Amino acid sequence: MPVKDGNVDGHKLTDLVVRAFTEVGLPDEDARLTATMLVRTDLRGVDSHGVARLASYYIRALKDGRINSNPKTEVISQAPATAVLEGDRGLGFVVGNQAMNEAIRRAETAGAGFVSVRNSTHFGAAFNYAMIALEHDMIGISMTDSIMDVVPPGSNKPGIGTNPIAVAAPAAKRAHFILDMATSVVAAGKLQIARWEGKPIPEGWAIDGEGKPLTEPDKWVRGEGGLLPLGGTPDLRSFKGFGLATVVEILSALLSGSPATLLRQTSPEARSGSNHFFGAFKIASFLPLEDFRNSMDDMIEAFGALPRLPGVEKVYVAGEYEAEIERERRVNGIPLHSSVVASLKTMSEELGIEYDL
Amino acid sequence: MPVKDGNVDGHKLTDLVVRAFTEVGLPDEDARLTATMLVRTDLRGVDSHGVARLASYYIRALKDGRINSNPKTEVISQAPATAVLEGDRGLGFVVGNQAMNEAIRRAETAGAGFVSVRNSTHFGAAFNYAMIALEHDMIGISMTDSIMDVVPPGSNKPGIGTNPIAVAAPAAKRAHFILDMATSVVAAGKLQIARWEGKPIPEGWAIDGEGKPLTEPDKWVRGEGGLLPLGGTPDLRSFKGFGLATVVEILSALLSGSPATLLRQTSPEARSGSNHFFGAFKIASFLPLEDFRNSMDDMIEAFGALPRLPGVEKVYVAGEYEAEIERERRVNGIPLHSSVVASLKTMSEELGIEYDL
Repeated sequence: MPVKDGNVDGHKLTDLVVRAFTEVGLPDEDARLTATMLVRTDLRGVDSHGVARLASYYIRALKDGRINSNPKTEVISQAPATAVLEGDRGLGFVVGNQAMNEAIRRAETAGAGFVSVRNSTHFGAAFNYAMIALEHDMIGISMTDSIMDVVPPGSNKPGIGTNPIAVAAPAAKRAHFILDMATSVVAAGKLQIARWEGKPIPEGWAIDGEGKPLTEPDKWVRGEGGLLPLGGTPDLRSFKGFGLATVVEILSALLSGSPATLLRQTSPEARSGSNHFFGAFKIASFLPLEDFRNSMDDMIEAFGALPRLPGVEKVYVAGEYEAEIERERRVNGIPLHSSVVASLKTMSEELGIEYDL
Repeated sequence: MPVKDGNVDGHKLTDLVVRAFTEVGLPDEDARLTATMLVRTDLRGVDSHGVARLASYYIRALKDGRINSNPKTEVISQAPATAVLEGDRGLGFVVGNQAMNEAIRRAETAGAGFVSVRNSTHFGAAFNYAMIALEHDMIGISMTDSIMDVVPPGSNKPGIGTNPIAVAAPAAKRAHFILDMATSVVAAGKLQIARWEGKPIPEGWAIDGEGKPLTEPDKWVRGEGGLLPLGGTPDLRSFKGFGLATVVEILSALLSGSPATLLRQTSPEARSGSNHFFGAFKIASFLPLEDFRNSMDDMIEAFGALPRLPGVEKVYVAGEYEAEIERERRVNGIPLHSSVVASLKTMSEELGIEYDL
């Protein structure tokens, strides 16, 4: 089926990504798994976390060995409902998928399963892992520490990452609930998108090294000032975003035996390391699955039936908007930014693989 | 030890609260447990959630039977790491304490334990339950649905509660990490405090029925407009606060078999019902306890050593500020607002119990 002019077909894109990953030494199965997650991220409209990072980060880091293409992962401690997984600096997508499935396996028998992962690398968009739980009629949770770009309230220096939290819960006929949120006001990728579009960013997203609002994304210098925690300002309770980021840090890093990001990311080279946390609740351990799913539908419909402010088309529940985009993009293709298309072409030439988008 | 002039001694206050609860039919042990949690809330500076609500809500609701003083609670479904507890409209403090201990008991053997609670009532400040886990060398989690005061992004009508999330994790020598946050910018109690102080509230806390910023707390009419989700505005990502509130709703209400608040709180009378969710992670299932606690200290100290903006005394990690207040108030007593003191006096007269503060 031909996609919209200028857009890219999701299947073709996936195949290209598989070729690229295979070429830099990722086993076939891991390449396919990762490509599917990366492209699904673009399909769901999270353009900052999809193939935009393929050439500039994942492929490069696999080539130069910062990411281990054949990690020896290992469960290093466990209880019936919990485990710690050593990631051996494997690709975050591969390690994350393994850990999430470990959590699900434990939840099958214990009702809940949680896995803390150390020594992994960037795993892309967090929702991909939480969503795996949906296939098992579970609620899924996924979080990760990340590059230290966020300024704790009261400081002008970054001290913690955008540390996203994702939660997925199955509905019956409505779009599944899928929340995926950086615990900062926005993730760093949103500044990149503003740069592409040549637009200023709203006050409250970031501050400069003097603590003043930063509204020109080009002026952001990594390490000076940075992104603000969810809430934005102390008046609007930015300590809450910082608190949530710290929870992610505790569960992902500290609980798996890693130091906090602030003590770990002391050099640019150390930045590619990452720790994650995954969880699954087996719904049928709590109540009949269909009761839960119907109750999800009822809730989502009740939110959708709330009165709307002038100019508002719909009151969206987390996941509904992304499901709309995914439906549209699976038909019309993905509108990749020209700079991303260019990066994929250059990458294909450098790797000597076929480019057919 | 005499407290500061005008302040109230925490122990004496606890004894008064015990007398009041006992007088309205709460068993001795439950009265002592609840009084301790309520007063600890005041000791930690969360004045909106402590004894301020004793006379106007808890005592009244126990007297008129909206809260059941002798509930028949029951575990109605379970797996090794999970349970659902029927609360029989018992006092939230009593039911919540039982449920949190059930989660801890399961975490002792499974490594993690989670309990979803239906048909309970208001349980006060969420941190009280998460903190119980600290005594067992665990990480504690606590959340609850609540009165439908929060307006989802795009609407002008409340559709969900302030649905707080609390997480507690033990440090070694530093103050324990204790985050307790409404998933709205602020909880409704903060508007009450602004009223006491005769102060306006910042833009971004609440909107009126037309969707315009509400800055005079006296002008808030429950049910018209309401509190804004964390983030405040769509530009600053209020969908995230709404998303977190929905997660709390799913885990507390839907997973325990209750309908969503929006479908349940259709009348003022229905408002006192509440559902909770509790969790515990046994740290020693993941890594040696002392490694974790030391790593917590290192992280907290690193945050505290970050450079500070002009005028900022300290970069606080969640729980540090409250620990400072608690130390001070345990020595100097609690500065109860005059209206709270008056309500306690009137309550004591009405109940015919001794008032000795």
